[in-house]
Amino acid sequence: MALSDFTLCPRFQKSFKILGKKWNGLIIEVLLQNGAQRFSEIAQKIPEISDRVLGERLKELENEGIVEKKNIENYVSYELSPKGADLKSIIKDIHIWADKWS
Amino acid sequence: MALSDFTLCPRFQKSFKILGKKWNGLIIEVLLQNGAQRFSEIAQKIPEISDRVLGERLKELENEGIVEKKNIENYVSYELSPKGADLKSIIKDIHIWADKWS
Repeated sequence: MALSDFTLCPRFQKSFKILGKKWNGLIIEVLLQNGAQRFSEIAQKIPEISDRVLGERLKELENEGIVEKKNIENYVSYELSPKGADLKSIIKDIHIWADKWS
Repeated sequence: MALSDFTLCPRFQKSFKILGKKWNGLIIEVLLQNGAQRFSEIAQKIPEISDRVLGERLKELENEGIVEKKNIENYVSYELSPKGADLKSIIKDIHIWADKWS
C-alpha cells in the first residue's frame, strides 16, 4: 500500500469512529450473537443503556448500513446487514488484541 | 463467548476509541510502513496535521503503550511498540472492510 493510499482515508477513520462510539460495539455484538432482536430484547441484554440512547445508536448504525430495521407484522426487528455481519472477525481480533495487551 | 463476557468490555471500547480518534489510525500506519521516525518525518507525511495536534496524538499513543518514544543521541524517534505493531492485521482488515462496503 502506497502512502498516498492512506494519506486521507476518511472511510477508514469513520469506520473506527463508529465502532469506537460508546455502546455501538456492544450493540453489534448482541446482534452478532443473537441474530434479529426486538428493541426490548436488545435493551434487556444491555441494561446499562437507556432506551433513548439505544434508539439513537440503532438509528446511527442503520444510517451507516450496519443494522437493518425490519417491520415484522406488529413489531420491529433489528438485525445486522451483510456489512455489519462482515465485522465479526474484526471485532473478534480487536477483542483478542485488547485482552492480550491489557 | 458468553454474553457476560462483553456486557461491559471497557478495553474493547477503549481500543476502538483510540483507533477511531482523528489522525491516530494514520499516525499508526505511517509508523507501520516506515518504522522509527522523527517527529518531523511523521509531520511531513501527514501535512494536514498541525505540529501541536501531532504532538498531542503521539503523547496519547505513547500513554496507551502503542507508540514508544526513544531518545537517540541528539534527536527523538517514535516507533510502534510490540502492542502497536500487533495492530497491523486489524488495520488492514478494517481497510478491506471499509473499501468493500463503501
